[in-house]
Amino acid sequence: MPEQIPKGLVRPTVPALDDILGKLFPVLDDGFVRVVDYMGDDAAVVQAARVSYAEGTKKVSDDRGLIRYLLRHRHTTPFEMCELKLHVRVPMDAWRQWIRHRTASVNETSTRYSIAIDAAQKTAADQWRLQASNNRQGSDGCLSPEDGAELTQQEADLQNEIRQVYQGRLDRGIAREQARKDLPLCTYTEAYWKVDLHNLLHFLALRMDSHAQKEIRDYATVIGEQIAARWIPLTWEAFQDYRFGATALSRLEHLVLAAVGRGDKDQARAVAEKAGWLTQSSKTGKLARNRERAELEAKAADLNITLPW
Amino acid sequence: MPEQIPKGLVRPTVPALDDILGKLFPVLDDGFVRVVDYMGDDAAVVQAARVSYAEGTKKVSDDRGLIRYLLRHRHTTPFEMCELKLHVRVPMDAWRQWIRHRTASVNETSTRYSIAIDAAQKTAADQWRLQASNNRQGSDGCLSPEDGAELTQQEADLQNEIRQVYQGRLDRGIAREQARKDLPLCTYTEAYWKVDLHNLLHFLALRMDSHAQKEIRDYATVIGEQIAARWIPLTWEAFQDYRFGATALSRLEHLVLAAVGRGDKDQARAVAEKAGWLTQSSKTGKLARNRERAELEAKAADLNITLPW
Amino acid sequence: MPEQIPKGLVRPTVPALDDILGKLFPVLDDGFVRVVDYMGDDAAVVQAARVSYAEGTKKVSDDRGLIRYLLRHRHTTPFEMCELKLHVRVPMDAWRQWIRHRTASVNETSTRYSIAIDAAQKTAADQWRLQASNNRQGSDGCLSPEDGAELTQQEADLQNEIRQVYQGRLDRGIAREQARKDLPLCTYTEAYWKVDLHNLLHFLALRMDSHAQKEIRDYATVIGEQIAARWIPLTWEAFQDYRFGATALSRLEHLVLAAVGRGDKDQARAVAEKAGWLTQSSKTGKLARNRERAELEAKAADLNITLPW
Amino acid sequence: MPEQIPKGLVRPTVPALDDILGKLFPVLDDGFVRVVDYMGDDAAVVQAARVSYAEGTKKVSDDRGLIRYLLRHRHTTPFEMCELKLHVRVPMDAWRQWIRHRTASVNETSTRYSIAIDAAQKTAADQWRLQASNNRQGSDGCLSPEDGAELTQQEADLQNEIRQVYQGRLDRGIAREQARKDLPLCTYTEAYWKVDLHNLLHFLALRMDSHAQKEIRDYATVIGEQIAARWIPLTWEAFQDYRFGATALSRLEHLVLAAVGRGDKDQARAVAEKAGWLTQSSKTGKLARNRERAELEAKAADLNITLPW
Repeated sequence: MPEQIPKGLVRPTVPALDDILGKLFPVLDDGFVRVVDYMGDDAAVVQAARVSYAEGTKKVSDDRGLIRYLLRHRHTTPFEMCELKLHVRVPMDAWRQWIRHRTASVNETSTRYSIAIDAAQKTAADQWRLQASNNRQGSDGCLSPEDGAELTQQEADLQNEIRQVYQGRLDRGIAREQARKDLPLCTYTEAYWKVDLHNLLHFLALRMDSHAQKEIRDYATVIGEQIAARWIPLTWEAFQDYRFGATALSRLEHLVLAAVGRGDKDQARAVAEKAGWLTQSSKTGKLARNRERAELEAKAADLNITLPW
Repeated sequence: MPEQIPKGLVRPTVPALDDILGKLFPVLDDGFVRVVDYMGDDAAVVQAARVSYAEGTKKVSDDRGLIRYLLRHRHTTPFEMCELKLHVRVPMDAWRQWIRHRTASVNETSTRYSIAIDAAQKTAADQWRLQASNNRQGSDGCLSPEDGAELTQQEADLQNEIRQVYQGRLDRGIAREQARKDLPLCTYTEAYWKVDLHNLLHFLALRMDSHAQKEIRDYATVIGEQIAARWIPLTWEAFQDYRFGATALSRLEHLVLAAVGRGDKDQARAVAEKAGWLTQSSKTGKLARNRERAELEAKAADLNITLPW
Repeated sequence: MPEQIPKGLVRPTVPALDDILGKLFPVLDDGFVRVVDYMGDDAAVVQAARVSYAEGTKKVSDDRGLIRYLLRHRHTTPFEMCELKLHVRVPMDAWRQWIRHRTASVNETSTRYSIAIDAAQKTAADQWRLQASNNRQGSDGCLSPEDGAELTQQEADLQNEIRQVYQGRLDRGIAREQARKDLPLCTYTEAYWKVDLHNLLHFLALRMDSHAQKEIRDYATVIGEQIAARWIPLTWEAFQDYRFGATALSRLEHLVLAAVGRGDKDQARAVAEKAGWLTQSSKTGKLARNRERAELEAKAADLNITLPW
Repeated sequence: MPEQIPKGLVRPTVPALDDILGKLFPVLDDGFVRVVDYMGDDAAVVQAARVSYAEGTKKVSDDRGLIRYLLRHRHTTPFEMCELKLHVRVPMDAWRQWIRHRTASVNETSTRYSIAIDAAQKTAADQWRLQASNNRQGSDGCLSPEDGAELTQQEADLQNEIRQVYQGRLDRGIAREQARKDLPLCTYTEAYWKVDLHNLLHFLALRMDSHAQKEIRDYATVIGEQIAARWIPLTWEAFQDYRFGATALSRLEHLVLAAVGRGDKDQARAVAEKAGWLTQSSKTGKLARNRERAELEAKAADLNITLPW
């Protein structure tokens, strides 16, 4: 190993990331993300993997192939060797989701020490999202801009009023830690957020997902496409192929599809039957709603495979 | 080791804690804490320590002495062998401080899935705290109840108005995840919070401290005095003696006090001088303000030791 | 929520696990695993999920369906609500792999405090595994028992000799912490190991896998099949279907298979070509070895899908 | 905040650390430590603290004072903003203690993939440490070099023999993962170890301590004095004063010393009596051995304070 690290070592740098160091990427109406510091690069992932596997991998493959192999097979520790440190400005309700990712380091502005940032997220007239009917946690489509304009005005009035109450309390000498209590959840906060590459990818996989709330998805998308893509391009490519764009087939789904593949429709039906996926509704005589079957049907449709029911 | 675990093993139980399982301890105006489940007891701490030290500790000491030894010398892993699972109802701004403790497991009500709890923390007329002048993050004294009454009324009006805006958005079909954005930071939320005993003690040491914000301190105090004290009484006693009530002397403070102890005032002054603690203000000719010296002076006063300056 | 937790709460118990509490499950020639304590059950997973999704999930599904949903969609926090505490006896070289899983609590016998356990793992004559040729980290087949007998005798002699050296050093008064230095890596150690269910499943997924070393795989298999299966039967069933038995298709693999599915062989080839999977060997004129293509071919074969090359 | 980060941001560098990047610091007979990469510096700690306290701390103090304040009051998150990545070569038995520190990232050479490093720690004739009589886990003094020479020769012979058995197994085709099983615990391994500054200080506080085993203490001392001292000199100085060199007084110890301080010997005795520290031995009529009292007596002696018993 020693010989792999030359004497006159210099820290790895990524010119493409150095170019945007400190640059502010705007997100939402008044938020941002920017890179403050980083450690490591694609080569650091490779270096860590090679110490584990030593000679074992020397011939195997170039760096790109090794990174793809590691990500495909969910080797995680080599990706922990890289760190990213961001400075973010984000509404507190999105930030609450963000810091549920526990494996990161955080220093956030305290509204006990300082007066709260005088900015809350504002919603444009055409950005009022409607509750999804098929998904209890999501949204689907938007209110008409005409109707939205009314909500936007109401939002502005409310935020102004709340801020005045906050300021009034401070003027009366109330402690900052208490005066803040009725500020809106969407009040902006700022923080340094430092995370290693493995945990960053996990964050991005969850928060760039279409099921994530739009606000945090906007942040994750900027971090992924503007920052991670520049920083660790090989890992980013592998992430797209093997994690973000991957599909999982369960053991039972696999059994059904394999039976279909060899033309054995009876067996395919038998597996599904045994899994309880083909129960008939006593009312309609049709297949009853079944979430697991629905997920398999969606996957089969994507693969252009016809299921025997 | 094997012989230490009898065949017909039963899970350790703590009758004093079983007695209050599920019991709701009220906190603040509308919050609560209650125990849902737990694992282990004082004896589990001892059991874990004895596997580490094996015969080494057998004769050493009874359980109480061993627990005190472990806590005094900051042995942490034996305390990780116990777990506590709470159900809490807490204002979101206190909850934000709470979940900064990363080494715990959390499931919280989602206001994406469900309508937000229709309750926000309310402040009694005599509970409006004034900003501390000597401590940027704290509070000190309260507004007069007469003046407070006005703020309390204003708070009620504002919370009502915000709730109406929230409800109005929902009535227009706006997605819950967006409608909630202007709810007050002090809106109540509920969660399961599970933590091991080592990390619980760390939480309590920080959050029962007089510098913690009153709201979270109230929760920590209930958890400590009502729950931990019943659950692991020996550990709780040791915690009070060796952690919560402990004083730390820095290397330099120790040098000063040791010099005072042997009557060598010159040496005591010399150490302080070298540390930069005795600089004179050019204006007043008196000792300039110095935070480190002030902390030493406070400790010396507590110990009834007179410093030579 | 409050109404979900009745007043006279009792801790959830799992009779099937209580039945084996403290029972020793032998592993390898002289190791064991046994359950010392636990917290929670399948219902605790469901309870935690329901506080998150509140009314959102009430009607959705029974407990089994919800657990399957959570595991399928990689929701992790509800599984953190359960804890398992084991007492294990394991060779140190397997233990080294074990404690690389960092999210667990451990108290291990110290060979600084106590004399090392007088047992090292012994290998039966028919258990000497041969180095796999196609896998640098694995083994494949065994030495003949006749040849193995020789190695087994040599192993016994060596272990005896090492133990004598160790004992001799102790007899000379050498400190235990130093005397132990030449003991074999396979010396047995004992420990308490406590882990939450989410991290336990992660451990089992990796260590029950056919690529894990046989020694630790034996432990993982006992923990999974003898203990987890009794403790949280619904989660265990879901784990088999959705995690342990699952297959992942990468974005590119999916593109190829979907093209094959709709009969578009050209497109399938085009995707593979672009991914660099169909490079011809200049020597043989055949397809060059390519690890990513080989993995796709294996998956397609399992699904009885014919690839167009 | 934004204005604190200038546009043309460059990564912070520490020339004193850059000077030794990649440089091998020898430890023990054949081990080493060297810095591979790092992120952040003393100023990064300050920057993170200032975002939390914002204006609150601006005037307070210079960087040195702030860092000392943070460390004294056990603020931990600002120190997490710095990372250090080392390449180490260390005997496996010391490494086992090392990786018990879970909050770090590790990639270690695998002896499943590769042949084990052909080096085991060797002990010089004058380095055979004797078991401490007053401390079950420590050592105290050394064997005479004449007697030690004998053990050193025996050690060399044993290590040679073990290595031959290992090589013989490999020659027979035994899998590396199994062939290694009887290698000595002190066989050298290599790893990358990456840790944030907060966790590094915790590691150093425990492993530079006089109770740590000499082997790992040697590594910790090199990391502290050769590397940390160069990297974050202000934090290192504060660490010495406020952590490594600090003394803790428990609540009871404080009560006793405070009573002595104001000349109230009766009260001092009363506290000690109530704590059970002054029990008389029925045999000797003298004070019975009591560990807590002994610790207080040692601290009082260090402070030149006379206890009234």
